[in-house]
Amino acid sequence: MNLSDSQTAGVPPVNRLGATEYVRQNLEHAISAGVVKVGQRLPSEAALAARFGVSRSVVREALRVLEVRGTTATRVGVGTFVIATEPVSQVDFAGFGATDLVEARPHIEIPAAGLAAVRRSEHDLEHLQGLIESMQRTDDPDEWVRQDTELHLAIAEASGNRVFTTVLRSIKAALALQSGQLNDGSNRRLPSEHEHRSIVAAIAQGSITEAEDAMRFHLDQVKDVVLTERSNTHEGENR
Amino acid sequence: MNLSDSQTAGVPPVNRLGATEYVRQNLEHAISAGVVKVGQRLPSEAALAARFGVSRSVVREALRVLEVRGTTATRVGVGTFVIATEPVSQVDFAGFGATDLVEARPHIEIPAAGLAAVRRSEHDLEHLQGLIESMQRTDDPDEWVRQDTELHLAIAEASGNRVFTTVLRSIKAALALQSGQLNDGSNRRLPSEHEHRSIVAAIAQGSITEAEDAMRFHLDQVKDVVLTERSNTHEGENR
Repeated sequence: MNLSDSQTAGVPPVNRLGATEYVRQNLEHAISAGVVKVGQRLPSEAALAARFGVSRSVVREALRVLEVRGTTATRVGVGTFVIATEPVSQVDFAGFGATDLVEARPHIEIPAAGLAAVRRSEHDLEHLQGLIESMQRTDDPDEWVRQDTELHLAIAEASGNRVFTTVLRSIKAALALQSGQLNDGSNRRLPSEHEHRSIVAAIAQGSITEAEDAMRFHLDQVKDVVLTERSNTHEGENR
Repeated sequence: MNLSDSQTAGVPPVNRLGATEYVRQNLEHAISAGVVKVGQRLPSEAALAARFGVSRSVVREALRVLEVRGTTATRVGVGTFVIATEPVSQVDFAGFGATDLVEARPHIEIPAAGLAAVRRSEHDLEHLQGLIESMQRTDDPDEWVRQDTELHLAIAEASGNRVFTTVLRSIKAALALQSGQLNDGSNRRLPSEHEHRSIVAAIAQGSITEAEDAMRFHLDQVKDVVLTERSNTHEGENR
């Protein structure tokens, strides 16, 4: 649909959707039948496009539908992995599910980090750098989690955008619960501190792109751990 | 900074930032000195890169800094326009500024529309379609604004992501104030209804990409009106 042409806006692109639906159903069938198992990678976009006789954009849309339904996860530059044979129920984090957080955080925290690089005050910067140092020093896991959450909130505050700040405040309790669970279950403390330092360094330098890249990398790592834990749970259920 | 290499993460890319800073300062000077006036378009990225002897990515970063500071606005495919000689104070919308809304809404409402296309229930769809019809029928401007806001909230709810729903609920009053102001000041009712129909049609069809494109187009139109009003205000101040 060409949205610049008001005459055609709203006309359903029937053929393309039909093709997407066809590819999606085939892939879902292959996954539920165990042809591709949990933990395995799907063929490349190019290979799937050739197999189904459709364009790569049709394959890409079908893969996005699978991801939204919770059966696959796409890692940029690596591929699309099966993480569940059926959509899964969510762990509850203070009213938000793990998928809610993994799905929504990049859309909010990546642009917020970019804006923070240009808008942070000296006071914001001191606060961020103080949290980085204090997290490195503490022996108390609960205190670490509290400061992890505070750091993410402080970055949103430094963005100067009150919508982003409001979102992070609303999900603060959920972030803390997820941070605690990730640090219990996996060895995330040191990598996490390293990633936080990169984010704050980019914000200190005033580089929008570096700050966004550093936050994207951090949230991708968080996502990987969340998805790995979920696929392990599923493999356990299948045994 | 190559974030996949943990040895180099956090090392400041000094040269590139120096170049960005150089380009930004030159452009800000040109704008404050009136070499490029409010309402005028800056030269293309390629022309600026050639003039300053830097790469286009350096120019792009410098232009993003100008936009974040509120002196320029970039319209995709059209160019970067000067909208103010200095950063401006914001109109207040229920605790959020016009910039807060214009800046944050696309990051939240575009992915929410995409998810809604895949996750909406039949009940969600009936609610959305009912609002579209009811907005077309009403003669009461306040009722139209209330339903405009309700439609955006209902799309977030249909996304099934509770973070997006929470954000839209938090900014509901601000959205209503902005919607009212846009409809008072400019002839946005009919185009807005057309854009809403495209969004809901894409959600009904289940197409993630079409729903995102339709929401992006709608929010771009809103942004254009907000920026035009702001640059008019500025031209008035400069007279």
